[in-house]
Amino acid sequence: MTRTLHTNALKESPNMDSFDLRLPAVRAAYREGRVTPRALIGALRERAAALNPDYHLFIHLLSDAEIEPYLAALDGRDIDSLPLYGVPFALKDNIDLAGIPTTAACPAFAYTPDESATLAAQLIALGAVPIGKTNLDQFATGLNGTRSPYGKCRNSVHAAYPSGGSSAGSSLAVALGVASFALGTDTAGSGRVPAALNNLVGTKGTKGLLSTAGVVPACRTLDCVTYFTATASEASELLALTARHDPADAYSRANPQWNDATAFGAVTRFRFGVPRQLEFAGCEESPALFAQTRAALEAIGGEAVEIDFAPFVEAARLLYEGPWVAERYSVAGALMESQPDAVLPVIRDVLAKAPGTTAVDAFRAQYKLQALKQRCDAVLAELDCVLTPSIPRAVTLDELEHDPIGPNSLLGYYTNFMNLLDYAAVASPAGFMRNGLPWGVTLFGRAFTDQYLLSVADALHRKLDVPLIGGAQQSADTPARAARNDRMKLVVCGAHLQGLALNGQLVARGARLVEKTASAPRYRLYALAGGGATQRPGMMRDATNGAAIEVEVWELPGSEAGSFLAGIPAPLALGKVELADGRWETGFVCEAYGLEGAVDITQYGGWRAWLQRAA
Amino acid sequence: MTRTLHTNALKESPNMDSFDLRLPAVRAAYREGRVTPRALIGALRERAAALNPDYHLFIHLLSDAEIEPYLAALDGRDIDSLPLYGVPFALKDNIDLAGIPTTAACPAFAYTPDESATLAAQLIALGAVPIGKTNLDQFATGLNGTRSPYGKCRNSVHAAYPSGGSSAGSSLAVALGVASFALGTDTAGSGRVPAALNNLVGTKGTKGLLSTAGVVPACRTLDCVTYFTATASEASELLALTARHDPADAYSRANPQWNDATAFGAVTRFRFGVPRQLEFAGCEESPALFAQTRAALEAIGGEAVEIDFAPFVEAARLLYEGPWVAERYSVAGALMESQPDAVLPVIRDVLAKAPGTTAVDAFRAQYKLQALKQRCDAVLAELDCVLTPSIPRAVTLDELEHDPIGPNSLLGYYTNFMNLLDYAAVASPAGFMRNGLPWGVTLFGRAFTDQYLLSVADALHRKLDVPLIGGAQQSADTPARAARNDRMKLVVCGAHLQGLALNGQLVARGARLVEKTASAPRYRLYALAGGGATQRPGMMRDATNGAAIEVEVWELPGSEAGSFLAGIPAPLALGKVELADGRWETGFVCEAYGLEGAVDITQYGGWRAWLQRAA
Repeated sequence: MTRTLHTNALKESPNMDSFDLRLPAVRAAYREGRVTPRALIGALRERAAALNPDYHLFIHLLSDAEIEPYLAALDGRDIDSLPLYGVPFALKDNIDLAGIPTTAACPAFAYTPDESATLAAQLIALGAVPIGKTNLDQFATGLNGTRSPYGKCRNSVHAAYPSGGSSAGSSLAVALGVASFALGTDTAGSGRVPAALNNLVGTKGTKGLLSTAGVVPACRTLDCVTYFTATASEASELLALTARHDPADAYSRANPQWNDATAFGAVTRFRFGVPRQLEFAGCEESPALFAQTRAALEAIGGEAVEIDFAPFVEAARLLYEGPWVAERYSVAGALMESQPDAVLPVIRDVLAKAPGTTAVDAFRAQYKLQALKQRCDAVLAELDCVLTPSIPRAVTLDELEHDPIGPNSLLGYYTNFMNLLDYAAVASPAGFMRNGLPWGVTLFGRAFTDQYLLSVADALHRKLDVPLIGGAQQSADTPARAARNDRMKLVVCGAHLQGLALNGQLVARGARLVEKTASAPRYRLYALAGGGATQRPGMMRDATNGAAIEVEVWELPGSEAGSFLAGIPAPLALGKVELADGRWETGFVCEAYGLEGAVDITQYGGWRAWLQRAA
Repeated sequence: MTRTLHTNALKESPNMDSFDLRLPAVRAAYREGRVTPRALIGALRERAAALNPDYHLFIHLLSDAEIEPYLAALDGRDIDSLPLYGVPFALKDNIDLAGIPTTAACPAFAYTPDESATLAAQLIALGAVPIGKTNLDQFATGLNGTRSPYGKCRNSVHAAYPSGGSSAGSSLAVALGVASFALGTDTAGSGRVPAALNNLVGTKGTKGLLSTAGVVPACRTLDCVTYFTATASEASELLALTARHDPADAYSRANPQWNDATAFGAVTRFRFGVPRQLEFAGCEESPALFAQTRAALEAIGGEAVEIDFAPFVEAARLLYEGPWVAERYSVAGALMESQPDAVLPVIRDVLAKAPGTTAVDAFRAQYKLQALKQRCDAVLAELDCVLTPSIPRAVTLDELEHDPIGPNSLLGYYTNFMNLLDYAAVASPAGFMRNGLPWGVTLFGRAFTDQYLLSVADALHRKLDVPLIGGAQQSADTPARAARNDRMKLVVCGAHLQGLALNGQLVARGARLVEKTASAPRYRLYALAGGGATQRPGMMRDATNGAAIEVEVWELPGSEAGSFLAGIPAPLALGKVELADGRWETGFVCEAYGLEGAVDITQYGGWRAWLQRAA
């Protein structure tokens, strides 16, 4: 039913038959002159206005006068000079847009900022056009989308369900086809739960990766701004364009280069964790959907590893049962004390215990969290990512009407721990319930592996072939590059082989052996002169007269690679080595001058064999 | 006077004429059979017992029965099988030693642990022998050494001054020659202030580097265990031996390999910050002593950079004026409420405001700290370390008698911010006041640059030629290796040169140009085939027919080196390049096979000149 409405709305626009709002499609439409930003955005605003009485997705839709400066700024600009030229986006109404009230869904709290939030300003400078401020659970406190005086946000597909929240309207803006992407925020799951319920990719990047300056805090130590998009590749692009250190945000962190745009790519072999015990809260369909998703990940090269999920769940409980509620209270408390009726009763209930929480309580909870984080980090250290459902099960509007707290809490089971533990997460579509409601999973991992997680989500999304919002099809283009995270592969052929003299240099760096293989048959191996007990080999590429040499591929944290490299003596170096299967990976090579006095030991097929013969 | 006492005590022991307790000396004495652990430690315990009535340095000196198991464990062991064979050490009495009461200088708080603290157990397993538990400011709350029911700790050199605290007795144990090293703890400066006042090196390593499991917390989020030693090289050795991730300590952190034992070495060129405005609290001698120290750092290759110290001072104020006092209260509060007289009045005064501090206060202070940390981190990003006095000026026992709070607070001016901001610090001797009182400086820097800071302290200590405790002389051995921190040098010769096509890859990683120079005259330069706009050169070593090639040396964060390396295409590699002055640094080299189709452009002297000619 919703799909029809959505599709019809698209068709009402001139030149917008089967119009697709994904970034590449919008770009192509502009380039090919099929539509102008004014025409497209005009049509989208009409559609938004038409949808709003049913969905309550916007608190404030920009007027002609309010949107004109953004459109005018595009006039005469070369489309290709702005990466987001004319791309329509929506902002959750706890993110400042200059001159437009920020309400946080609390009229009494509203203020009108002179400046846009750093991130909004970044997007606008890149050519994107804000179309409106979206509805949310008041003060971003909630995961369902019904806690707003601006109306309850129903689901984009099924009228009996909520949109999910707190970034309710932002998810609907994308799901209902009125914006290419939308900004949400996510402290407890607010950028992931609505993504799961509306067939969207919800990207909760690493804390500090996107600026939160100009965002009404929920818990300042935990808050993240998020992107809602139809696909992971769009989120990758947006993240790469906007992940910048912001001096105006005390919690901003510089993005390491291993997590830049080029880190988004094709995933091959990887290890993903799956909770040993899954919580579906009685949902009958979810176990099969999850099993199917797990199988799809395995089919694209993932090795599933069952993990103990207890410390994650225990950490999650701290968010609302612990002193972090005081952070929320520090934002809304003064208003709540002076004008109790200005704050929704359910929000008052959530914040009620904050004033009695002491600094001692706050520190004790931090100790507990830190102990749990040590356990969770140890689990993640062995993996590339973890796969969970995004929510145990969907809850209905009726359930929330009868109990505004319990069903809401249930929605946060797989999301509440994420920011407390400082992990990155991507909620990705993974199918539909029989009633048509979207169903999704979350991939999460270590901080600053955002682009890698998006790469896995992208591959999974394609593999499952989930129809996109509006019925669009996935692009068939798979990324040409290999995906990259905070680990790197290293091909070793000599004293660093498992059990040999210098292997400890790898082990001490937390490296693990991932593959015993051989080089392409295009190398010669030499025992270099000198060295004694730690004599070392040199591998030289020789395409015409080479052989396959025994090598091992190790994986080590990228942050440890610098000191490893610094310790490698001439004439050895780290370059690129071709493996038996044609891959090229970083590994040991040897400068030509170093062969003086060396012995050609290619015939042994490897350093280990040569050592054994010599012994 | 103290020196005489100290020397006399040494002479009372058989075979202990001019005995030196530094690690290499103790080791040599054992190896050469000049003394046994039983004889040495027996003599030291006698000396400690003789000193204790005046100095109150020990709360508990181990009895014959208590020490015997540690000595017995050495019987029949090969001296060289244990890195700390028979090395006597003292522990601050807030660190557990199995079977001995831990008092934290509060008899009513005392308990007798079944197990030793992780770090104490590590040291014992390495062969070290604990001789006693040392006196401290109660609950490690204080910086002067007089806040103890076990007696006030006077200074090791001058009777009118305190030892400094809170690790008072531990500093005295080393300064008075009864232990080779001692363990202190340091939350606000407790491991650095007493080092400054007693001519010791006080090493407050990065938070989490040494386990705090089995240590009575002061502020659990900030606490560090510290080493007191006569020299920086001993601290380096102890740190390297004991920096291990401890699952029993939630705040334990793995030491990156760039900060392992091999990172301690000779410093050459480095940049050190100096506060633009220094606080000496009216001390007339300190400015000259500081200027002399700064000059000595410059003389050993340091470039001084004046820095804004305001945000550091502002952060420091948060420690006692902010909610971190609640952490201390969480340890001592229950006792203080139930038995007020069990806690010293001055400690009660410090903790008094904690119960009224709310969780909201705690989070707000954390926001403020985070904002200050961003500013301070930006300062440190440009530097290898910062030099400050360790204390503005010494305060007398009389001053503390009249005002137990004010003069104590003054002692923390240069130390209180360190753990809040997550920096590593080393307090190092730097001279003497005219009245004989030791005077010292602190070198601090980014987390996990501990071995580098110790390297700078070592070089400074030698350069200033400060007489060691007991009048011993510094060893003349300078480290053979180069010191290393979290940055690495990278020699570039092609498209990564400043202003050329790929230089942005360095800039994006926070790299900075440190030197424009040339290679040793032993290289040939080739323009490699292919590549077009990003054509690249290959540098090949040729000792007999080479030339000097224009290169630049960049410095980049080691954590970014991995992704940089991963992005380098074959046939290029990162190996070691010899520079004009004979140094070898990590830099671009080229595999021999890559020369196919390349053009020898050595005659241009560099890539830049070749590009210009070609253009």
